[in-house]
Amino acid sequence: MKALVYQGPGKIEWTDVPDPAILKPTDAVVRIETTTICGTDLHILKGDVPAVTPGRILGHEGVGVITEVGSSVTSFAVGDRVVISCISSCGHCEFCKKGLYSHCLGDEGAVGIGWILGHLINGTQAELVRIPYAETSLYKLAENVPDQQGVLLSDILPTGFEIGVQYGKVTPGDVVAVIGAGPVGLSAMATSSLYGAAKVIAIDIDQNRVDQASKFGATHGVVSADKDWKKQVLALTDGLGVDVAIEAVGVPETFGMATEIVRPGGHVANVGVHGTSAELRLQDLWIANITITTGLVNTNTLPMLLKLVVSQKLDANAFVSHRFALKDIMDAYDTFGRASETKALKVILEA
Amino acid sequence: MKALVYQGPGKIEWTDVPDPAILKPTDAVVRIETTTICGTDLHILKGDVPAVTPGRILGHEGVGVITEVGSSVTSFAVGDRVVISCISSCGHCEFCKKGLYSHCLGDEGAVGIGWILGHLINGTQAELVRIPYAETSLYKLAENVPDQQGVLLSDILPTGFEIGVQYGKVTPGDVVAVIGAGPVGLSAMATSSLYGAAKVIAIDIDQNRVDQASKFGATHGVVSADKDWKKQVLALTDGLGVDVAIEAVGVPETFGMATEIVRPGGHVANVGVHGTSAELRLQDLWIANITITTGLVNTNTLPMLLKLVVSQKLDANAFVSHRFALKDIMDAYDTFGRASETKALKVILEA
Amino acid sequence: MKALVYQGPGKIEWTDVPDPAILKPTDAVVRIETTTICGTDLHILKGDVPAVTPGRILGHEGVGVITEVGSSVTSFAVGDRVVISCISSCGHCEFCKKGLYSHCLGDEGAVGIGWILGHLINGTQAELVRIPYAETSLYKLAENVPDQQGVLLSDILPTGFEIGVQYGKVTPGDVVAVIGAGPVGLSAMATSSLYGAAKVIAIDIDQNRVDQASKFGATHGVVSADKDWKKQVLALTDGLGVDVAIEAVGVPETFGMATEIVRPGGHVANVGVHGTSAELRLQDLWIANITITTGLVNTNTLPMLLKLVVSQKLDANAFVSHRFALKDIMDAYDTFGRASETKALKVILEA
Amino acid sequence: MKALVYQGPGKIEWTDVPDPAILKPTDAVVRIETTTICGTDLHILKGDVPAVTPGRILGHEGVGVITEVGSSVTSFAVGDRVVISCISSCGHCEFCKKGLYSHCLGDEGAVGIGWILGHLINGTQAELVRIPYAETSLYKLAENVPDQQGVLLSDILPTGFEIGVQYGKVTPGDVVAVIGAGPVGLSAMATSSLYGAAKVIAIDIDQNRVDQASKFGATHGVVSADKDWKKQVLALTDGLGVDVAIEAVGVPETFGMATEIVRPGGHVANVGVHGTSAELRLQDLWIANITITTGLVNTNTLPMLLKLVVSQKLDANAFVSHRFALKDIMDAYDTFGRASETKALKVILEA
Repeated sequence: MKALVYQGPGKIEWTDVPDPAILKPTDAVVRIETTTICGTDLHILKGDVPAVTPGRILGHEGVGVITEVGSSVTSFAVGDRVVISCISSCGHCEFCKKGLYSHCLGDEGAVGIGWILGHLINGTQAELVRIPYAETSLYKLAENVPDQQGVLLSDILPTGFEIGVQYGKVTPGDVVAVIGAGPVGLSAMATSSLYGAAKVIAIDIDQNRVDQASKFGATHGVVSADKDWKKQVLALTDGLGVDVAIEAVGVPETFGMATEIVRPGGHVANVGVHGTSAELRLQDLWIANITITTGLVNTNTLPMLLKLVVSQKLDANAFVSHRFALKDIMDAYDTFGRASETKALKVILEA
Repeated sequence: MKALVYQGPGKIEWTDVPDPAILKPTDAVVRIETTTICGTDLHILKGDVPAVTPGRILGHEGVGVITEVGSSVTSFAVGDRVVISCISSCGHCEFCKKGLYSHCLGDEGAVGIGWILGHLINGTQAELVRIPYAETSLYKLAENVPDQQGVLLSDILPTGFEIGVQYGKVTPGDVVAVIGAGPVGLSAMATSSLYGAAKVIAIDIDQNRVDQASKFGATHGVVSADKDWKKQVLALTDGLGVDVAIEAVGVPETFGMATEIVRPGGHVANVGVHGTSAELRLQDLWIANITITTGLVNTNTLPMLLKLVVSQKLDANAFVSHRFALKDIMDAYDTFGRASETKALKVILEA
Repeated sequence: MKALVYQGPGKIEWTDVPDPAILKPTDAVVRIETTTICGTDLHILKGDVPAVTPGRILGHEGVGVITEVGSSVTSFAVGDRVVISCISSCGHCEFCKKGLYSHCLGDEGAVGIGWILGHLINGTQAELVRIPYAETSLYKLAENVPDQQGVLLSDILPTGFEIGVQYGKVTPGDVVAVIGAGPVGLSAMATSSLYGAAKVIAIDIDQNRVDQASKFGATHGVVSADKDWKKQVLALTDGLGVDVAIEAVGVPETFGMATEIVRPGGHVANVGVHGTSAELRLQDLWIANITITTGLVNTNTLPMLLKLVVSQKLDANAFVSHRFALKDIMDAYDTFGRASETKALKVILEA
Repeated sequence: MKALVYQGPGKIEWTDVPDPAILKPTDAVVRIETTTICGTDLHILKGDVPAVTPGRILGHEGVGVITEVGSSVTSFAVGDRVVISCISSCGHCEFCKKGLYSHCLGDEGAVGIGWILGHLINGTQAELVRIPYAETSLYKLAENVPDQQGVLLSDILPTGFEIGVQYGKVTPGDVVAVIGAGPVGLSAMATSSLYGAAKVIAIDIDQNRVDQASKFGATHGVVSADKDWKKQVLALTDGLGVDVAIEAVGVPETFGMATEIVRPGGHVANVGVHGTSAELRLQDLWIANITITTGLVNTNTLPMLLKLVVSQKLDANAFVSHRFALKDIMDAYDTFGRASETKALKVILEA
C-alpha cells in the first residue's frame, strides 16, 4: 500500500510500504477513506518529537472501513464504517478504568501514553492502518455523517471540548475566553455552549482569525496585538475577569495571558502543546483560588459529540478549509504548513 | 486597651490604643481570650505586605467573648464565646454566595479579599477587636473546647484542609505527599484522612520535622535534602507518582518538586504563600492531565472541623508548641520568628 | 394599601390593609410593579396549605422598586428596581451557607423553610411588601429587562432549572423527558439546553400543550394519553430509556411514569408539588442505579438566569399568556384557575 | 468437577458436573480456593429469581488461581491468584465506559446486567469457574492477603462502599445512619470513615446486631424495635436529621424509616434488595431537597479497597463468622440460612 512515511527531520514521503496485518486478537485493520493533518504532525516533521523514528507512518485521525478483525473483537465486523480515535486504549488498565485513556498503560509501544498512532506505531496517513484495542478505540459511524465530519471527531473536537471546556469547568452563564483561534481553539469555542457559556471571547493575534471565530460560536473577539487587549477582555466581564480562560496556542506568553484575565475562583485550561517552560506568577496567583489544568484528550466524549454532529447541533463542516486526494498528501502538508498564508484550518484527505 | 501595633518594617509594639467600637449594625466586638501568630504576620513585620500600614493592629486568629453586637446581629449575643474566622465575609456578595468567602467584595477595607483583619483593618492581637459581618464571620464555640484548640480553627486547620486536601481532591485510597511540615503542612496531613488517604508522605528539608509529622498522620517521611528524595517518594507509589501533592512552603523549588512527583491525572494543591514566580514545566506537563490549584482559605469548613475537634476525631493540641501571656506577645514573636531554632509550631497567647 | 388577602378556603379578596413597614434592620419595603399567580396559590386557595391562615396576603413573586431599607442594608437603596426571590434567606444559617436557601433556618415565620412570602408572612400580591433579609433575597434588575421577564425569575425559571435540570444532572448529549408541560415543566425544557441536552421530549396528557412545548425548546413531544406513550418515548432513545426524567405535575401517576422511562444510571428529578404518596417500585428499581431528587427552589441561579434573559439567550416572554392590571387580580385568579380552558401559562399583573 | 447446582425452588445439590472450558478469547478459567454465600443466593434458593434456571451453578464471589486464559488475555497468566468480581464487565460497552459495570451490555447471558455469575451463567460455588471478560472482571491478589479477606472484595465490601457510602455522598463531618446491621450494612459502616463520617449510627431490630456493629465502625446504636427509635436517632443529630441514611435491609418499612430520618438536603442510599414496592411520601418529601439512590455494585472500587485491606486500614476479617470446607457447602447453606439463630455474617468456604 501507499503511506506517508517520516524519514527524519524535514523529510516525509508518500511511498510504498507493506500492508498492515492483524497482530493480536484485539486488533482491527481499517481501510482509510478520509484522514487529515494535525498541528502535531508538523511538530514531528520538524523533528520536535524524538519518539517518532524514521520509517514511521504518520497520522492519528481517520475515518474508514474495517477490512479485518482479530479473534476477540465482537463489537465490530468487516465492512463497518468507523471513526478512529487518536487515542488507543486497552480498556482495562488502571488509567483506562478511570476514563483516563490518554495515559493507557497498554502493551503497545511506550507505556503510559494513549497516543501511539503515528507516534509509536504506524498511523492513519496511509491506505490501511492496524488499530490496536479495536473494541475501545473505534466508534461506528452512522451512514448519514459525511467522512469529513467524522474525521474531526478523531481528535480536534474532543480535544477542544474535553481539555478546554470540560477541564475548564465551564458552567451556565460563564464568560469564557479562548486564546488562539486555530482549529483546537475554535473547537473549544464551538462546544462551550454545551455547558451554557453566556459569552465566548475569541482572542488571537490575527484580526482575520478573530473575525472568523464568530462562525464557531464566539460572541466577542479581541485582537491580542492591541496594547489594551486585556482591558478589552475585562470590559466584557464585570471587571474581575473571565470565569474560564482556555489556552490553545502553546507558548509561554499566551499561557501567561490566560492567568492574567481569569477571575478569583476561575479556571485556566491549557490545551496548547508547549515546548518550553512558562512563568507562573505565584506571587499573585497563590491567593487567587484559581485552578489550572493540562491534558491530552481521552476521546471519551467522542460518541456524545458524534450524536450532536449527527443531529446537526454541532457543525463540523465549518472546520474544513481545504480538500485533497489522499495521494496528494504532500501538497496538503505544504498548504497546512503555511496556514497563516493559506488560511488553512483542517485539510481533508480523501482516498 | 493594649494591642500589638505595626509601626513599619521591623517594628511592632505592645501599646495602648483606643478601644474598638461598633461602627455598623452588622459588627460585633470581641474580648480576646486567646490568639496566636501566623507566618503571614512575620511577612508583614518584614514589610512584605505593603497594604499593612503603620498603626495597624496585627493578627487574624482568635477566640474570645462577645462584649457588644450591632443592631442587626441576631445569631450572637453578648457573652457568647466564639472563634473568629480569619476571613470576614459579608455573606451576600457574589463570591460569598458561592462560598468563596476569601474573595468577599464587602465594603470594609479593600474590595475583593476576605482577609482584612490585621491587614486592612485592626486585628486580633489585642484585648478587644471589632469584627465586621459578625453573623458570617464568627462561630460559637462549645464549652468543652479549650481556647487553644479553638484558635487553630481560625485559620491553620481550615487552610490545610480546604486549600490542601479539598482543593487537592484527595479521595479514598490516595497517596498524598505534603511538601513542608510546618503548621499548615501538618494541618493538611492531619486532615487528609477525612477523605481516606491511604498513605501520607511528609516531605521536608529537616529530618526533625519529618519525624515529628508522624504525630499528625503522616505514614511515611522523606527528607528532601537527600539527593534521591524523588526516588524515595516514587518508591512509595506504584512508580507513577503520587495522587495528590500539596505544596506548603511557598518557594519556587518546592512548587517544582510538587509538579515532579504527581502522577498523570493527579493534583497539585498549592497552599504556600509565594513571593516570586515559579517555573512551570509545560513542555512536560501539558500532556500530563494534571490539575494545579491555589487559594486563600474560605473557612467554610470551620464548623465541620470544629465538630471533629469537639468529638476528638481531630487533635488540635498537637499543633501547640509554646504558650505565652498575651502581654508577653513581643517574646512570642521572638520565639515564633526563630522557629527553626525553637522548634515552634503554633505559639498560643492567652489573655 | 390594597392587597389580595386570603380569608379561608375558597375565599380571597382585593381589599384595604395597612401598609407594611420596616421591622428589622435587614428588611426592605418594595412597591410592587409586577406580580403573578403561581399554581401554589391555587393550592392555598383550596385550603390545602394549612400554614396559610386567614388574613394573609398571598403571592411570592414580584418585581418592584424599593421604598425603604433597614439600617443594615447596604447593597440596596431606595429607588432600586429589584426582582424578589420567592425564597427569603437569612444568608448565615447552616443551610444558607451551603446554598440551600430553601431550608433557611432564619427567625422569620416557621423555622426551616425559605418560602415564607405569601405563606408564613404577607406576600407580593399587594401594592407594597416587606422583604426580610433584603441583602440575600432581592436582586437588582437591569433597566433593559421588562418587568414581565423579571417576574419570571422570582420562582418559575429558577425552579425548572435548579430542581429539574440541575438536580436531574443533565449533561451534554442527554435525552431529557419532561412530564408536564405547564409553566414549570416548560421552564425545565427551556433551560435544559444550558447543559447541552441533545433531545428534550415534552410529555403531557394534552396535545395542545405538547405542541406548544416546541416553542420552549422541546425537540419532540409525546401525548401521554396515548396507550403506547412509553413505547414512543423509548423509541426516541436507544431503547434503554432517557438519561433524565423530570416530573413537573405532582401526582403519583406521573411520578411513576418518570421512574418507568429512565435508563439504568439515569436521574429522576421531581419538581411537582405532591399531595399524596406515590408507589416506588423498588422491586425493579433497586438494581437500576438510578437517582431520584426532590426539592424546593433555592433561587441561587437567579442572577445567572437573569444575565441570560438580559442577553436574550433565554426568552422569558414566551411564558406570558395573559396580562391584567393589579387591581383586577380577582379576574386573573379566575383565568389562571381555569388554565386548561383559558390556555393560561403565566398571568402577569401590573400595578 | 464438583459444584453446587440449583435444581429448582428449595433444591440445591453438591454434585458432579463437567469442567468449564475457555469459550471465548477473553475468558479465563479459575480454580476456586475460597468462596462464600450471599443473601442473594438464599433468594435464588427460594425461587425468587426466575432468571436462575435448574442446572445453574450458584455463587458470584470467589478467590482462586487461574488455570487457563483465552488468547486475547494479556494481563493475567496461568497461576495468577485473583479475586473474582461479582460483576462481569466487557469493558467496552457504553455502560462499562462510564464505569457502570453493573449494567454491562456484554454478549454473555441477558443483556444489560453485569451480574451474570451464578445467575445467567455458571458461578463460583464450584471447583472451577469460567470467567468471561477476564481482563476487566478479575483482580490480582497480593500474596499477603489471606483468601478470606480477598473473597469479601468480590461483592460485600464494594457494595456497602459504592452503593451505600459513595452513592450516599458521605462527606467529612456527616452523621450517617445505616439501617440493617447485616454484612452489607456493616460494610457501609466500616467504609464510611473513608469519607470522614463523624458519627455512624447502626440501626437494627436486633440488640445483638446493634452491639456488634461497634466492631465495624458504628459510633452509636439504636434498636428499631424501640417505640422511640426515631427520637433516639434525631437526638444524635442537631434535631434536623441525619446527613445520609443507608437502607441495607430491603423491605418497605426500612426504606420508609430512611426517608423519615434524613435531613433537608440529605441523601438516602438504598442498598437493600427489594421484592415489593415501597410507599414514597412525596407529600412530605417533594419540598425536602433530598436525593434517593439505588444500585447494583459496579466493583470499580475493588482495587482501592484491596489496597486498604492490604495496608490493614480496613479489617475484612471481622466479617467472617463461620468457616467450612467447600465440600460441606450444604451445611454452610444451612448455617447461613438460619443467620438470626446462628449469628452468621459471612460463611467462608475453602477448597
